[in-house]
Amino acid sequence: MTEPFELSATEAAAKIDSGTLNVETLVASCIDRINAREDAVLAWKHFDPEGALSQARTLDQGPKRGAIHGLPFGAKDIIDTSTMPTGHGSPIYEGNRPAIDAPCVALSLQSGGVLMGKTVSTEFASRHPGATRNPHNPAHSPGGSSSGSGAAVADLMVPFAFGTQTGGSVIRPAAFCGCVGYKPTYGLISAAGVKENTRSFDTVGLYARTVDDIALFRAAVLAIEHKALPERRIKGLRIAFCRTMFWDRASEANQKVLEDAADKLRRAGAIVSDLTLEGPFDDYENHGKTVTGFEFPRALTFERTHHMEKLSDELKEKFLKAEEAIDFDKYQSALNQLAACRQWLADKFADHDVILTPSAAGEAPEGLSYTGDPCFNILATWTYTPAITLPTNTGPNGLPIGVQLVGPHRCDLAVLAIAKAAFPVLSENG
Amino acid sequence: MTEPFELSATEAAAKIDSGTLNVETLVASCIDRINAREDAVLAWKHFDPEGALSQARTLDQGPKRGAIHGLPFGAKDIIDTSTMPTGHGSPIYEGNRPAIDAPCVALSLQSGGVLMGKTVSTEFASRHPGATRNPHNPAHSPGGSSSGSGAAVADLMVPFAFGTQTGGSVIRPAAFCGCVGYKPTYGLISAAGVKENTRSFDTVGLYARTVDDIALFRAAVLAIEHKALPERRIKGLRIAFCRTMFWDRASEANQKVLEDAADKLRRAGAIVSDLTLEGPFDDYENHGKTVTGFEFPRALTFERTHHMEKLSDELKEKFLKAEEAIDFDKYQSALNQLAACRQWLADKFADHDVILTPSAAGEAPEGLSYTGDPCFNILATWTYTPAITLPTNTGPNGLPIGVQLVGPHRCDLAVLAIAKAAFPVLSENG
Repeated sequence: MTEPFELSATEAAAKIDSGTLNVETLVASCIDRINAREDAVLAWKHFDPEGALSQARTLDQGPKRGAIHGLPFGAKDIIDTSTMPTGHGSPIYEGNRPAIDAPCVALSLQSGGVLMGKTVSTEFASRHPGATRNPHNPAHSPGGSSSGSGAAVADLMVPFAFGTQTGGSVIRPAAFCGCVGYKPTYGLISAAGVKENTRSFDTVGLYARTVDDIALFRAAVLAIEHKALPERRIKGLRIAFCRTMFWDRASEANQKVLEDAADKLRRAGAIVSDLTLEGPFDDYENHGKTVTGFEFPRALTFERTHHMEKLSDELKEKFLKAEEAIDFDKYQSALNQLAACRQWLADKFADHDVILTPSAAGEAPEGLSYTGDPCFNILATWTYTPAITLPTNTGPNGLPIGVQLVGPHRCDLAVLAIAKAAFPVLSENG
Repeated sequence: MTEPFELSATEAAAKIDSGTLNVETLVASCIDRINAREDAVLAWKHFDPEGALSQARTLDQGPKRGAIHGLPFGAKDIIDTSTMPTGHGSPIYEGNRPAIDAPCVALSLQSGGVLMGKTVSTEFASRHPGATRNPHNPAHSPGGSSSGSGAAVADLMVPFAFGTQTGGSVIRPAAFCGCVGYKPTYGLISAAGVKENTRSFDTVGLYARTVDDIALFRAAVLAIEHKALPERRIKGLRIAFCRTMFWDRASEANQKVLEDAADKLRRAGAIVSDLTLEGPFDDYENHGKTVTGFEFPRALTFERTHHMEKLSDELKEKFLKAEEAIDFDKYQSALNQLAACRQWLADKFADHDVILTPSAAGEAPEGLSYTGDPCFNILATWTYTPAITLPTNTGPNGLPIGVQLVGPHRCDLAVLAIAKAAFPVLSENG
């Protein structure tokens, strides 16, 4: 028998709608799941079962609030919540309690979502890891920086969670943990009340277990009407297979997953052609590092002034020293170069519906100290284009490998619709 | 004899550097000025003379911290400060004390700035006015939403202040109160810790009394080296005189100031030609209203959920009802249209160094209920281009009229340099 926590968000919503599942039962089931698994996964920085049950009972007694009425969600712990502490992955913020909920959380609550807790983030959404482990193997990283959100959703603890992506922090944990991760067009979801890392890149993203669930959560967070995703056919779809300039960094297994994905789509009738990033993309990775190197240390000025001793050595030595090194002209030039990349990519999308590209460099790395290489995520993040990763495969270590689709700027819904059509095709064996 | 509070920031910094003025004396002089004038101007939501003097004494005892060592500044009260309440212009936030300083404030303090207090903002930087009056005539509006910042700097209370602009909220108060206002390229100054209004437009800006002072403050806030502005000659400068589609809304006096400004620059050797906003600019104002209409009510979700009764009727009736009215496709289409305007304008800047355009529709309106029409400010705000207003003239009511210069995206320093060269030319009589 299916336990309520195993239901997709869309399934659970339908049952709540039809009166065959009440919110309290669903929430209690998710709580049981968390209690059973949390010691192994450590996805939660703050977990509030009593508060969640109380929200659930209130929702059961009232009218339907919105599209995600009764559905539990987690919020990455760099997102402000008025009813729970918000720690930013740093001891500096132990016990910090913001005055209000960030808009993305407030909109979820307005739509009937049940805030289950705060999920572990790396320190300030940078590289120094939190406690979370990969739900498929506790000796492996869950990825980062949205470590807890990726792990919690993949491990069936909650159907939804918020993450944020500055380099590869939504897509990579989803790929490593084995769930769907969606990094919207830059700016689509408000980043107010979200701890700033690199303002030119920071993007709030969503986790779920199906593409339909992502569409449902997205509608709630944007406070727009939820409609079923339009049906897309794979036949005739123009797909750009982009190995990127980082192809060598992908594991053999990951390369094979992508080559196979291209073949599967081609066999299903898609027109697959290769896309090489060139022209303004020369030195792309360094331009992004320049921008982060300039913005991130400045975003942490208060912490550096008042709490330097509580910052990790990794943060201080690798990421905060860049400030002196990067001059303003170089920073401005990097921003201009990335803008040129955006334009170049927009032009390419005249001939392509979507880009197929790796979600990560391979399976989740062993050990918890390194959250993995974001190189395959920066294409979408820094060009502000929507991206989704689908948990399609398992690698030689028994860990998930994902496939990423990237679409044109502001064409998020088209990417989701294509992802929904492609998911079963990509998930076929052989 | 010149009182310290009358000094420009650049002059005061030079005196502090050379040891002929200590920080405590400067701060005490500004405090005296505020005490003498505040009853008439009401620029401050929170004023902390003891805290400022204490900061001053600490600075006098230590080494030079940075470019604005010892210089007092005010922060608009929608900007988080850890040592002062942050009220967002709303009774909801009475006594609200953020955990940390917004990066723009933290960077100013790091550079040796002295935080004097929080300046009055309209409610959530929207249209419902605060208490501030125009320092030139208390029966007239100071403009908004950065009402207190514009008034405080123009009235010699502090040499520097922060404002924010979503429509015309930095440039307009500067024009109405008679100081220099600078609205940078979108995103140049971090908006973290600044209450979100419309994330696609919100831009942190600066007030000062000279263009050199703006350049000094800007370097501190960006944590970059401060260099003297490069000298620009007016002769040969290619100036686009842009009356915009709102020319009819400008008062006769304001129109004359701008026509005269064009003549003065032409006589000084500039090549002045007319620029008409066309093509993607059709319906420009409505596109921006669509974006704000979609984003602003969502940014205030927490306040609407928990404190609806404490929101002003003006806010509820004029600005929060738009949410239901604006559908997502219309919002996305407006964003795309504004992106096309940015590109159109960038192309025009191939032939022009700077745009000359009104700073406001006229002198500050009588009465305190209406902060004035932002129509002449939205060109720069929504195209993300840098703008500066110069207090060059006085109108028939004895109130200031400014002249605005707008430059290409990310060419802020060029606009400041041109503004410095143009200021004396534009300030000539006749």
